[in-house]
Amino acid sequence: MLFLEYIESKKNEHLEELKEFLRIPSVSTKSENKADIERAAKWVAEKLRAAGMENVEIVPTGGHPMVFGEWLKAPDKPTVLLYGHYDVQPAEPLELWTSPAFEPAVRNGNLFGRGTADDKGQVHIHMKAIEALMKSEGKLPVNIKVMIEGEEETGSTNLWNFVEKFRDRLKADALIVSDTSMLAPGVPSVTYGLRGLNYYQIEITGGAQDMHSGVFGGAVPNPLTILCELFAKLHDKNGRVAIPGFYDKVAKVSKAERKALNGLPWKLKDFKKTVGAAGLCGEKGFTVVEQIWIRPTMELNGIWGGYIGEGAKTVIPAKAYAKFSTRLVPDQAPEKIAKLVEKHIRKLLPKTVSCKFEVLSMGKPWVAPYTHPFFEAAHSALEKGFGKRAVFIREGGSIPFVTQMYDTFKVPCILLGFGLPDENAHAPDEHILLENYFGGIKAVAQFYKELASV
Amino acid sequence: MLFLEYIESKKNEHLEELKEFLRIPSVSTKSENKADIERAAKWVAEKLRAAGMENVEIVPTGGHPMVFGEWLKAPDKPTVLLYGHYDVQPAEPLELWTSPAFEPAVRNGNLFGRGTADDKGQVHIHMKAIEALMKSEGKLPVNIKVMIEGEEETGSTNLWNFVEKFRDRLKADALIVSDTSMLAPGVPSVTYGLRGLNYYQIEITGGAQDMHSGVFGGAVPNPLTILCELFAKLHDKNGRVAIPGFYDKVAKVSKAERKALNGLPWKLKDFKKTVGAAGLCGEKGFTVVEQIWIRPTMELNGIWGGYIGEGAKTVIPAKAYAKFSTRLVPDQAPEKIAKLVEKHIRKLLPKTVSCKFEVLSMGKPWVAPYTHPFFEAAHSALEKGFGKRAVFIREGGSIPFVTQMYDTFKVPCILLGFGLPDENAHAPDEHILLENYFGGIKAVAQFYKELASV
Repeated sequence: MLFLEYIESKKNEHLEELKEFLRIPSVSTKSENKADIERAAKWVAEKLRAAGMENVEIVPTGGHPMVFGEWLKAPDKPTVLLYGHYDVQPAEPLELWTSPAFEPAVRNGNLFGRGTADDKGQVHIHMKAIEALMKSEGKLPVNIKVMIEGEEETGSTNLWNFVEKFRDRLKADALIVSDTSMLAPGVPSVTYGLRGLNYYQIEITGGAQDMHSGVFGGAVPNPLTILCELFAKLHDKNGRVAIPGFYDKVAKVSKAERKALNGLPWKLKDFKKTVGAAGLCGEKGFTVVEQIWIRPTMELNGIWGGYIGEGAKTVIPAKAYAKFSTRLVPDQAPEKIAKLVEKHIRKLLPKTVSCKFEVLSMGKPWVAPYTHPFFEAAHSALEKGFGKRAVFIREGGSIPFVTQMYDTFKVPCILLGFGLPDENAHAPDEHILLENYFGGIKAVAQFYKELASV
Repeated sequence: MLFLEYIESKKNEHLEELKEFLRIPSVSTKSENKADIERAAKWVAEKLRAAGMENVEIVPTGGHPMVFGEWLKAPDKPTVLLYGHYDVQPAEPLELWTSPAFEPAVRNGNLFGRGTADDKGQVHIHMKAIEALMKSEGKLPVNIKVMIEGEEETGSTNLWNFVEKFRDRLKADALIVSDTSMLAPGVPSVTYGLRGLNYYQIEITGGAQDMHSGVFGGAVPNPLTILCELFAKLHDKNGRVAIPGFYDKVAKVSKAERKALNGLPWKLKDFKKTVGAAGLCGEKGFTVVEQIWIRPTMELNGIWGGYIGEGAKTVIPAKAYAKFSTRLVPDQAPEKIAKLVEKHIRKLLPKTVSCKFEVLSMGKPWVAPYTHPFFEAAHSALEKGFGKRAVFIREGGSIPFVTQMYDTFKVPCILLGFGLPDENAHAPDEHILLENYFGGIKAVAQFYKELASV
């Protein structure tokens, strides 16, 4: 196949171009990176045009812009809508990176840098697959629409407005997303389930100002202690989330599915090694695979308050803060869960403090039957692209957009992940296995070819 | 009295000179302020010389330097050793200051700025009292030794080495310290008891690196949650510190003393107003005055971990941190308490995490009978200097040095405080009531006069 030869011959150029993309610190959560976000959007638009996509535009939103493009010259062939994101997580803590987060570097067959796995590397796989087909065949085997957003890491705040506005232009027979992981090295995977995500922030206020812990300590509410006492009450001794009603709508997963998931070539030993903790802990009565894929959670993502600098300061602060999130599974409703969480937290807090409760984002869980022929095509393309047996998996992460698209357009959503679970997405030393990056380009090009004959 | 007229005539000059002192950001806990610390030490030495003190020197220590000076030309008169500190607490959070922390400003009869009350303002009171006596009488009524240190806010790490080295030169009949507060405006006070202070820091480590809360959440130890669960267990429901043995050595305070302390002109209403919280909380079975003066405590002073920036980051961090302290009362031994705290914390933590436990500083509590004639002289001088009834009080804060000096030299330690409890020592908008600053200069000069006739 010409396109496979083309991909093989361009490996160095592809890698260098990806590095260029990775050097742009497009951190969506920080206002100081606004110019970088815009630079990244322009970069994506240019490269899409160069790959042969048409009508490429940078669409302003209420927040960071969306990059859209299309190629619609394959009449009677399916149309797919490709989704990805060009924004990345913050790189902090910077001191824990072996090489700087925004200076990509290859070590031991991996490319290191913020965004390598999540999601710039995977977006680039699609760009290069499209380019390979166009350059080697002069056209694409199917119709392709591309939307690459800049707010995925901040909860895709303006994405839905964009979809509503572009609704007709986005119509497709399938949604393709590459923003997830393969089960393990050498196990190409199609993901058919994701957890939902609600992200919260609270601010607890005790006194009217910071106070000297000697002069006042022992008689006044300490918001730090009260924050700790609050979060200590949000899990029970079996590792379950101790919020009344939290599990009420959790759909039972069939024995057959639990068996299939637990039978995947997933190794607890490898997971433990990746985590690197002295032990694991989680909800009793479920395997680790079940805990991270099919069970809801509540996790603290950040806490702060009082003096956190060098040395000692004997202060009782006025305020304490926490960022935390709940991962949701079918059929938990994000709005309902947010209300339960706020209600219970307000109930638990003592009257000596006040509390500001914010929901920063909400997103539904998603799970799909993988019986549609498009899923078969994806599975087959992965096996051909990688030369390995492919599997169907679920994931613990969240892409709220997938659920929304599924609910709105009622088309199959096919998640082809080329990352790996231990590639430190959201952590220092994020990386992607180059074998998966190059294999991904082949598999995706192959997938578009196979879709043409479905 | 000539010296009183001198003090009255120099008010403006005194205030301007104090402002100069306050403009030096001598934050001892931050390495970036090392040069400012040295500048502050020089400033103190110069002003002591100008006031008439002799043999003034800046003595290097393992950390920040000590300023020492003496005037020993009053044979047959008592010798007092004056202690204070020229270092200050960090000014953060900067955004909560009405006027900048290191740009002193007068508002409503108060002087605002970091160090106004704790302790530059009070050190300056003594400098100006000495100057007034020297300038108006050509000599001092008693022998005076002065030591002003630069590490009080970081636990006086090198103070004791200095004392050991200078032991003979420090010998005196009494130790005078002005680093505490008056009970209330218009109530000049002699403090006869302080709580001790142990300051700790812990670092809890779960995974080998930060992890994506979607990919790993639900199965791995979250050090933030574990930190919260730990601190939730360190107080019982009666507000008592839940560390076995913590109260074992707490000396019983006599009924008479409790009655005297509770009968002071101290107003719960004013305390509540200063705190500004929706309610108070503390150890059951004790009044607020008892909770803050005669009962030991454990307070969190800072917590941090995970993502604490703008927006959302779905991370389970590898590490969580806390700074916390125990205030101690007679006869709790700091070393013993530190061991009990560490032992219990290690016992409470689950095996899924590791913990680094550090004791940043330790200091004994102190309480003295106030029957010595020097205490009488102080009481009388305060009444004359302020024209108000003076009282004997205890304080919740800590000056470990006082205990050490008391234990070593076996001389009365007389604590003359000119701050007020609501003057935000250690907090934004720290200030000193100018009436107390000016009254303090008169009272201290008067005190040295009265000591001469004891």
